[in-house]
Amino acid sequence: MSSVAPVEHHDRDAFLKLLKNYLACQSVSTDPAYREEMAKTREFLSKLIKDIGFTNVRELDGGVGGHNALYGEWLEKPGKPTLLIYGHYDVQPPDPLDQWLSEPFDMQERDGKLYARGISDDKGPTLIALEALRCHMAANNELPFNVKILLEGEEETGSPSLPNILSQNKELLSADAILSADGARWRADLTAINVGSRGNGGFEISIKTADLDLHSGRYGGAVPNALHEMARIVASLHDEDNRVTIPGFYDDVIMPDAQTEADLHSINFDGQGWTANIGSIEFGEKGYTTLQRLWDRPTLEVNGLWGGYQGAGSKTVIPNQAHAKITMRLVPGQDPEKIREAAKEYIKRLCPEGVELTITGDRGWTKAYAVPPAHPLLLAAEKALEDTLGDKPLRVRVGATLPLSDLVRNTLGIDTVMFSFSTADEQFHAPNEFLRVSAIDEGVAAWIKLLELVGEQSPQAYKNL
Amino acid sequence: MSSVAPVEHHDRDAFLKLLKNYLACQSVSTDPAYREEMAKTREFLSKLIKDIGFTNVRELDGGVGGHNALYGEWLEKPGKPTLLIYGHYDVQPPDPLDQWLSEPFDMQERDGKLYARGISDDKGPTLIALEALRCHMAANNELPFNVKILLEGEEETGSPSLPNILSQNKELLSADAILSADGARWRADLTAINVGSRGNGGFEISIKTADLDLHSGRYGGAVPNALHEMARIVASLHDEDNRVTIPGFYDDVIMPDAQTEADLHSINFDGQGWTANIGSIEFGEKGYTTLQRLWDRPTLEVNGLWGGYQGAGSKTVIPNQAHAKITMRLVPGQDPEKIREAAKEYIKRLCPEGVELTITGDRGWTKAYAVPPAHPLLLAAEKALEDTLGDKPLRVRVGATLPLSDLVRNTLGIDTVMFSFSTADEQFHAPNEFLRVSAIDEGVAAWIKLLELVGEQSPQAYKNL
Repeated sequence: MSSVAPVEHHDRDAFLKLLKNYLACQSVSTDPAYREEMAKTREFLSKLIKDIGFTNVRELDGGVGGHNALYGEWLEKPGKPTLLIYGHYDVQPPDPLDQWLSEPFDMQERDGKLYARGISDDKGPTLIALEALRCHMAANNELPFNVKILLEGEEETGSPSLPNILSQNKELLSADAILSADGARWRADLTAINVGSRGNGGFEISIKTADLDLHSGRYGGAVPNALHEMARIVASLHDEDNRVTIPGFYDDVIMPDAQTEADLHSINFDGQGWTANIGSIEFGEKGYTTLQRLWDRPTLEVNGLWGGYQGAGSKTVIPNQAHAKITMRLVPGQDPEKIREAAKEYIKRLCPEGVELTITGDRGWTKAYAVPPAHPLLLAAEKALEDTLGDKPLRVRVGATLPLSDLVRNTLGIDTVMFSFSTADEQFHAPNEFLRVSAIDEGVAAWIKLLELVGEQSPQAYKNL
Repeated sequence: MSSVAPVEHHDRDAFLKLLKNYLACQSVSTDPAYREEMAKTREFLSKLIKDIGFTNVRELDGGVGGHNALYGEWLEKPGKPTLLIYGHYDVQPPDPLDQWLSEPFDMQERDGKLYARGISDDKGPTLIALEALRCHMAANNELPFNVKILLEGEEETGSPSLPNILSQNKELLSADAILSADGARWRADLTAINVGSRGNGGFEISIKTADLDLHSGRYGGAVPNALHEMARIVASLHDEDNRVTIPGFYDDVIMPDAQTEADLHSINFDGQGWTANIGSIEFGEKGYTTLQRLWDRPTLEVNGLWGGYQGAGSKTVIPNQAHAKITMRLVPGQDPEKIREAAKEYIKRLCPEGVELTITGDRGWTKAYAVPPAHPLLLAAEKALEDTLGDKPLRVRVGATLPLSDLVRNTLGIDTVMFSFSTADEQFHAPNEFLRVSAIDEGVAAWIKLLELVGEQSPQAYKNL
């Protein structure tokens, strides 16, 4: 055993160098053009976790033509808990490229922030977790408990391979709980911990009103226009109170209990300032606060819509096709399959006769998730944050989706605690994604502390939750 | 004088070769990337009309940074009428490229049809007119009357330079009437002549709901979505009877007189078959027939709409921007400026508070046009068609726009007769634009006849119309 505490082994400069190299791997999972970059990214991580001391490092293939997940393990602490540490190595597409102030795959520091695609979601937070493991290993030549690592490559595309990866590797992946490096902190000025996340699902709709684009002089006024029809459909998906109009959409929603709601209302949260900060306005479902809209209420968003001429100048065409990408965020109580079918049925009904509708590209359809309030890993995570940062963390939820949580509960029967050091304002999924430099040292210290605390727990505490 | 009639000088093979070369000039006026191709096209035409015998060939610049028009003249018949023959050398953009069965700028013949961008609108018809002039010159070493040629380069972009070109060259362009090679025949199975056209105008609207694209998990439900707002605006532009909802839009519309309406209803026209032929359905403003919707009623069409993610897979983003290109077709009675302002005012009103709206890219705003029923050039054109094709042509209107007609009446004080040999079903402004091979010989013969008939007219017949 070394006489130097694990945290003393943390080397921020070396860490930043490693992070820059990791971010240079262009691991965009949704676009087939990046397939080789995805493989390169797995090689990078494979070498990294082997160097830390993980063994049995291998790729796990879901068998559906997706991107493999990466697995590694260190299991030399019998009688101690076993945690599966989760992160994802894939990132969102970098476009619109012209809005980035520096190259998306070349990490740059400006004013205490590090900019790159995926740095906040989820490459930075994952590397923080791995750094804590490395520090423990460097200090003690061992970890405080048994650790399995699972790094997914399809988080940004709704995790199509993950169900198979989990169900086909139940033994390999068995653990007492999942500790996730994904999930993000709510705000920079408040110590908080995420105890729940929304589900997510979506599809693409395409409509066709004629065999070809038509000249607006020759046909204008006498044939349908695919963009008009698409606009009518999209405009019909919300009512004037900004409620989603899909029949039954809200029927099964379970709102948090009175205490949780009271806690929620006690939070010092300036919704107007929060939206003004991103150049927007407070908006949403009538009758709910901004935090309720974000955490407790389901949503439907059109993520992309297009048709007709988009080039310079104008083109007097009646577009014959229009397309829209739609996703929904689901909350506790909602059954993804039921919502999916209700949504498709409703959209079919909105599409007028004579207009051809196709619905393709189902993705996700994961349930919302909530961690049990007395879960030992949640308690350990809260103590680690309090010990490291000085404040007892507030329990909050997150509007985003971690497909793993719901899946893991269903396949492996265990719960997930989120312990990420990104922050929600860091422009992930948008241009100029960044991570605060300060998150690195904070995060490494908190992870080191959490690893110690779990090392003091008994595996029995994780049974019968 | 040659003993061979003008029509004997028509050489279809040579014509097709010339046409192929003309179509290889990529004269897309709306996109600045094609600027050099536009110049190349003018050079091609300049040589061509000089070879026929036109003099004083020159480019006319509107002084607004647009594409020059090409001018030429042959004025050696004092005491005979002077006609200004019009065509346009610019074409629509070729996209969507993946829907073309052959290269858009490489003319190909398949099943009696010639395929290329601009072949029907308006390069084929223009070249037919020039071929007739060439044949007359070859047969007689002169033309039957005085001819000026004006070939415009901005017809597809709303003719921004044309007002200046006309008003700054009144003397040069003075004539008894305009004879236009643009305008298209209504159908292949019916001899008809166009006596009116709709006006056209439009702009682009952009809305912005936040400074950047936002993650739908982090912000979804609590901020506006630019695509939802754009869809609401677009969906609000028509009511459930498919009437345009802009206040006052129909107020000044002058419908044709009872006789014209009766003629219209007597036409054997199968609207259902006509729309089925393009894979579409009969549709439009309630209370009107398909022909009325096409010729007598104004319209509003969204020609392009886009925002958010359009790539492969999905991206859970809340788009912060959305764009739509909008054009309108105007009919007699409507004042373009009044309609334009009413449309902008209405769209501003539809845009909710907190959502930033910008309106840019005004184009066109030309009035509708109708040729006087007893105009000598119209009568000559009708006789030329009857003599050549055997049927007395039916007077019809066209839903499309020829910006020249209205402008010319206002600046030069003369009328326009359309004498084109393209047909309305030839997919102009869409992929796989074509021209019927049969139109070439028919068109050349009819043009030759028309030139002879006008040669028999007195310039006095063109006064006091």
